[in-house]
Amino acid sequence: MKTLNVVVWNEYVHETTNEKVAAIYPQGIHRTLADAIQKFHPDYAVSTATLAEPEHGLTQERLDQTEVLLWWGHGAHDKVADAVVDRVQARVLQGMGLIVLHSGHYSKIFRRLMGTGCGLQWREANEKERLWVCNPGHPIAAGLDASFTLPEEEMYGEPFGIPTPEEQVFVSWFEGGEVLRSGCCWHRGNGKIFYFQPGHETYPIYHDANIQRVIANAVAWAAPQGRWPGALNAPHAKVAPEPLGRK
Amino acid sequence: MKTLNVVVWNEYVHETTNEKVAAIYPQGIHRTLADAIQKFHPDYAVSTATLAEPEHGLTQERLDQTEVLLWWGHGAHDKVADAVVDRVQARVLQGMGLIVLHSGHYSKIFRRLMGTGCGLQWREANEKERLWVCNPGHPIAAGLDASFTLPEEEMYGEPFGIPTPEEQVFVSWFEGGEVLRSGCCWHRGNGKIFYFQPGHETYPIYHDANIQRVIANAVAWAAPQGRWPGALNAPHAKVAPEPLGRK
Amino acid sequence: MKTLNVVVWNEYVHETTNEKVAAIYPQGIHRTLADAIQKFHPDYAVSTATLAEPEHGLTQERLDQTEVLLWWGHGAHDKVADAVVDRVQARVLQGMGLIVLHSGHYSKIFRRLMGTGCGLQWREANEKERLWVCNPGHPIAAGLDASFTLPEEEMYGEPFGIPTPEEQVFVSWFEGGEVLRSGCCWHRGNGKIFYFQPGHETYPIYHDANIQRVIANAVAWAAPQGRWPGALNAPHAKVAPEPLGRK
Amino acid sequence: MKTLNVVVWNEYVHETTNEKVAAIYPQGIHRTLADAIQKFHPDYAVSTATLAEPEHGLTQERLDQTEVLLWWGHGAHDKVADAVVDRVQARVLQGMGLIVLHSGHYSKIFRRLMGTGCGLQWREANEKERLWVCNPGHPIAAGLDASFTLPEEEMYGEPFGIPTPEEQVFVSWFEGGEVLRSGCCWHRGNGKIFYFQPGHETYPIYHDANIQRVIANAVAWAAPQGRWPGALNAPHAKVAPEPLGRK
Repeated sequence: MKTLNVVVWNEYVHETTNEKVAAIYPQGIHRTLADAIQKFHPDYAVSTATLAEPEHGLTQERLDQTEVLLWWGHGAHDKVADAVVDRVQARVLQGMGLIVLHSGHYSKIFRRLMGTGCGLQWREANEKERLWVCNPGHPIAAGLDASFTLPEEEMYGEPFGIPTPEEQVFVSWFEGGEVLRSGCCWHRGNGKIFYFQPGHETYPIYHDANIQRVIANAVAWAAPQGRWPGALNAPHAKVAPEPLGRK
Repeated sequence: MKTLNVVVWNEYVHETTNEKVAAIYPQGIHRTLADAIQKFHPDYAVSTATLAEPEHGLTQERLDQTEVLLWWGHGAHDKVADAVVDRVQARVLQGMGLIVLHSGHYSKIFRRLMGTGCGLQWREANEKERLWVCNPGHPIAAGLDASFTLPEEEMYGEPFGIPTPEEQVFVSWFEGGEVLRSGCCWHRGNGKIFYFQPGHETYPIYHDANIQRVIANAVAWAAPQGRWPGALNAPHAKVAPEPLGRK
Repeated sequence: MKTLNVVVWNEYVHETTNEKVAAIYPQGIHRTLADAIQKFHPDYAVSTATLAEPEHGLTQERLDQTEVLLWWGHGAHDKVADAVVDRVQARVLQGMGLIVLHSGHYSKIFRRLMGTGCGLQWREANEKERLWVCNPGHPIAAGLDASFTLPEEEMYGEPFGIPTPEEQVFVSWFEGGEVLRSGCCWHRGNGKIFYFQPGHETYPIYHDANIQRVIANAVAWAAPQGRWPGALNAPHAKVAPEPLGRK
Repeated sequence: MKTLNVVVWNEYVHETTNEKVAAIYPQGIHRTLADAIQKFHPDYAVSTATLAEPEHGLTQERLDQTEVLLWWGHGAHDKVADAVVDRVQARVLQGMGLIVLHSGHYSKIFRRLMGTGCGLQWREANEKERLWVCNPGHPIAAGLDASFTLPEEEMYGEPFGIPTPEEQVFVSWFEGGEVLRSGCCWHRGNGKIFYFQPGHETYPIYHDANIQRVIANAVAWAAPQGRWPGALNAPHAKVAPEPLGRK
């Protein structure tokens, strides 16, 4: 029996327009991510969705059954329909987990849930990144060493325009001198959100064993432990539970 | 010299369409609030803005000089232009304080900044509310007793669909049995946000001395202590501050 | 196979000195709690420990194997040895869950972990309490209605001298007019902490079906999802992972 | 008129036993810090206190009038009397600001207020540190560039055993590859706490212009905006504010 319904969403544009990216992810970033999650969690039902599909592959019906959604987007954030963003937000508030990857920091859905600009500094210079674990017992860091490196990554640096994370899982060091709060947790409504910075499309980041482990761990961490169907409601409580009119 | 630029925004619809409300606030809720703030802070420059004004009275130029904005809205949330909401959000992220009052919990700007649904239970039954101070030393609670009452208020009750407050200043008890986290603080970017629940338009809430004191305190608390003009930017940091290429 | 090691700690003084309490909890509050948890989770290994046992029943060896600890204390907080408090704190930081009940708000271990005074208002007047769920999808609130009542409980009221909770699960309404943040979550190190207010010894609170459900839910929620053995260390990192001396 | 009473506490041991440190701080770290704060805030009353003074210079009477306390300690944490730690904690809960510097992360008072171990990695290797501002509008970062460097500092690295900061003002990059959440804010009771990592005694860190600016800014930020004298109380509220006995 499949124990968790996971959907990996990818805008899937670079892979079809840039040879370098296509060579790294011939079937798309979503496929690589889905395979990695499946490898760690053979019991999960992991599927994918992309921008070009009708309703971006995220119909209400499908989202209603999705328990954890991963989001990778970069150049086409503006092409994501607001109605789909509304729908994803509603599901997060009800309890669906959301893992936002790399340039997804600038997606409509992440900015919607954070309430802030979510900007940061960036530079493409093939530089080394070292990720440090801030809480070695955190389930998202399970199985990792104290730190691990990526030989080449895009630099994403502070200031990162987010609300203060509720849990800080990773902070990153970049060769060029910058730092980033690169693994951050929040709740919104009944949903858990994890932002994880690595994943620039021109490097084989999602083939890295540590990165795959983090993402697989994060999916398990974000699994809903309950559901709040009325997370968007404002009910009229006509009848008071305690007697009125004592004045 | 005026030490703080404060703007009280009110949708100003009930006062022009409902006799009962007009009797309580003949010049509008905004006027009563502005006068109250001015009474506590004679050195502040307090002005008002309403929905019907061009750009709802919140031009970019005016917002750029506004240091604390108060927001009262109820039935016309949808009539607030998205462009104005964008602009207010940007100013909050840069450092402008925002005080959201009563049914403003359901305004576009509050939901935008929270990232959640912001729903709650409600009932209009003329019931007594008692507000408790959770931190007697908090500047927003300065000058208050341990608790104070409103003889008649609309009930707003939990669950309140907000991110966990960073500081809890008030929790309310209602005669009919409900409770609410009725005074809550957050940061978004460099701006401070305070939500304060009392203020249903058919009761003279904003004429109450304790309520006026809380709002005047909150304006002082929310005053910017710095400004982050680039809160919405994502700058390209072309040149690394530390040498690259050591590999 | 037992899936979670749970220890219910109780000072066990009132039950042996007060007839009324003995009648409600003939085998002690710890026994009633342990039985309730076992009923909901037949697969857990639930045992008990009390103040009078050697090392209060909390030897290092036993704590090392404890995954969730519940704590009920009232009149004998000062009799708990500091060495045992140190030991419990260390285990929480490493990842052990801790459920603090009722007057445990004033225990050494809770105040140690919070860093604050943890005081609150109180009154014994047989008054009705109504507990509201702030997040209906939270795993600790699973299976509950929007609110539930206790016909008679000691009043515990705000201001409650705690750091702002990271998650607010319950807020309580008391007949006499007070309110309390009565179900609160925090992390300390890698451990999860839940404070739950109901449980005055002269009322049969821990026989209540809703209360038992909350406590059983909380134990599952607090189960460690990882372990940080070095949570109290400050290691000398003699060798830098990146080359020094580039200046 | 003096507008803020500030006390700089220093254990003052290295300066009297180590020639290198004495050369950098001939009158002690406390004197250098006090002079720096006074330079930025001529209107503040800035004084000093040290371990060797009776009651470590922190009598109840003096603390009652202290509005912001700075704390530098390293090798003599254990020599600080628990009674003085109790007293400092009580004042923080009532509203006194506390700035904890460098190795003060391991002081009794900081660990008491955090509730955690407060450990971190460390290395003395004369390495470059770069501090990044996470919120350029934060009052503690006023007047700084996006980042600034210290040519030589002791490395303090993650994992840092603290509760998640409520505001992250600085994150540091170290030449040797580590990172640290190096400027962190919390509330405890009504008091504001700021931890700031730079300040190893064998480097002239507290003579650095940026460091002095941060510390002066932090003192202003931590100034009490109210006082909660009863922060440690648990009052018996004998009389219910609302009528009982309606059942």
